[in-house]
Amino acid sequence: MTTLVTSGKTKELYTTENDDVLRAHYTDHTTAGDGLRNELIDNKGAVNNQISSLIFGYLNQNGVATHFIEQVSETDQLNKKVEMIPLEVVVRNFAAGHFQKRFGTDYLQTLKQPVVEFFYKDNDLHDPIVTKSDAVGLDLLSAEKLEQLEAAGLKVNQVLTDLFNKMNVTLVDFKLEFGINADGEIILADEISPDSCRLLDKDTNESLDKDVFRKQTGDMMPGYLEILHRLQKAI
Amino acid sequence: MTTLVTSGKTKELYTTENDDVLRAHYTDHTTAGDGLRNELIDNKGAVNNQISSLIFGYLNQNGVATHFIEQVSETDQLNKKVEMIPLEVVVRNFAAGHFQKRFGTDYLQTLKQPVVEFFYKDNDLHDPIVTKSDAVGLDLLSAEKLEQLEAAGLKVNQVLTDLFNKMNVTLVDFKLEFGINADGEIILADEISPDSCRLLDKDTNESLDKDVFRKQTGDMMPGYLEILHRLQKAI
Ligand SMILES: Nc1ncnc2c1ncn2[C@@H]1O[C@H](COP(=O)(O)OP(=O)(O)O)[C@@H](O)[C@H]1O
Ligand SMILES: Nc1ncnc2c1ncn2[C@@H]1O[C@H](COP(=O)(O)OP(=O)(O)O)[C@@H](O)[C@H]1O
Ligand SMILES: [Mg+2]
Ligand SMILES: [Mg+2]
Repeated sequence: MTTLVTSGKTKELYTTENDDVLRAHYTDHTTAGDGLRNELIDNKGAVNNQISSLIFGYLNQNGVATHFIEQVSETDQLNKKVEMIPLEVVVRNFAAGHFQKRFGTDYLQTLKQPVVEFFYKDNDLHDPIVTKSDAVGLDLLSAEKLEQLEAAGLKVNQVLTDLFNKMNVTLVDFKLEFGINADGEIILADEISPDSCRLLDKDTNESLDKDVFRKQTGDMMPGYLEILHRLQKAI
Repeated sequence: MTTLVTSGKTKELYTTENDDVLRAHYTDHTTAGDGLRNELIDNKGAVNNQISSLIFGYLNQNGVATHFIEQVSETDQLNKKVEMIPLEVVVRNFAAGHFQKRFGTDYLQTLKQPVVEFFYKDNDLHDPIVTKSDAVGLDLLSAEKLEQLEAAGLKVNQVLTDLFNKMNVTLVDFKLEFGINADGEIILADEISPDSCRLLDKDTNESLDKDVFRKQTGDMMPGYLEILHRLQKAI
């Protein structure tokens, strides 16, 4: 018997025969504007499951410990069960989104070095930004673990920036979530997909990600499929 | 001749015969709600000038380098001229204000250790919070200088918490501004007063600070005068 453990805006997590393993089912749900918009976009779950599987498999092979075990169907993958850390770790190479708005910068303004930000995952509070000092003061996480998250975020950024460069894609920014596994170690969990990254074609600066949905500038699926196909060639 | 160098919401800074020295004139202007409310409160400038002079003199004597030279009249003091760093450094011992709202904590919730936050001083952007990583990425300040600001904020907190404890006052949180002097050193500038601190009588938990004005719960001047009188006894 398989039972639903948890579900969020885009994924459903089910038990498996193995207590330490969950099956993640990627749905077609697509959200924007703090969850106010929520639409089903045909085939998105399958495409994101494949993209996230390829990226996490690549990270596993390139020195980043992740929850990813294997893809088991078009829409499903097996993940190590972790206790999620309630922080979103955002890494930015160029200014966009909330960062651009907060600081009034130009879209894609170059940063002196990659920026890592933490957001406290809490829907009622609308995921507020949390500094490392805030997080320690609020007893959310130790200073040591926060440094580990920051270092892991920067490592993922290095590995993926190189990978996307080979695919003629600029990695503008992305969001990660981490968890603590059965051995008490911090590992990368959740997903990496065009839902959680800003990805631009280097020739046209065209968005190949959820910004097409956020800004309602057209059909987002061609960009997602383009990322999948370039990944399949590059990896 | 003395000319106006700069003025802000509450103070006017004038030249003196000495190029490295400015005269700060404390006005009665009192603002709240991102500057939307702005009222003249009789005698506030004089009281804050006296409070800030006492506190900065005490900090000078207790290992904190500040811009403060001497009080020269009821409303005026001499300060070393600095190039201001456009960051507000906020130190918190208990949850209140923006922090309380952002994280949905109880008023005065205890923090595991003092929290230091930075805000980018920019009226058009409404002084957004800026992490150390943001500040380095935006090339606002070096990582090294940010660490210096954080350490200075914590040092001021130690010295002032002890001082206020002697006065039977709880130092909940406060805002600092720093500048760079003629020798390129970071020194504490601006003011420390009930305009920029949350101060509670330890017996009654009554606010002896600008929260009385912010929350419009009565006349704020008795609290300001109480702080001045307890400081005059304690120092
Ligand atoms: N390996 C894992 N073990 C346990 N929970 C996980 C794992 N990976 C992701 N999750 C959690 O699965 C839930 C569903 O994901 P998602 O639909 O993306 O949720 P959200 O609405 O929070 O974005 C989230 O709470 C996420 O943190
Ligand atoms: N020692 C100093 N040298 C130069 N400028 C200073 C010094 N101390 C404070 N200032 C600046 O004086 C200006 C007036 O202060 P204030 O009225 O408090 O302004 P604000 O509206 O920014 O709070 C501010 O820009 C402040 O940064
Ligand atoms: Mg999610
Ligand atoms: Mg001021």
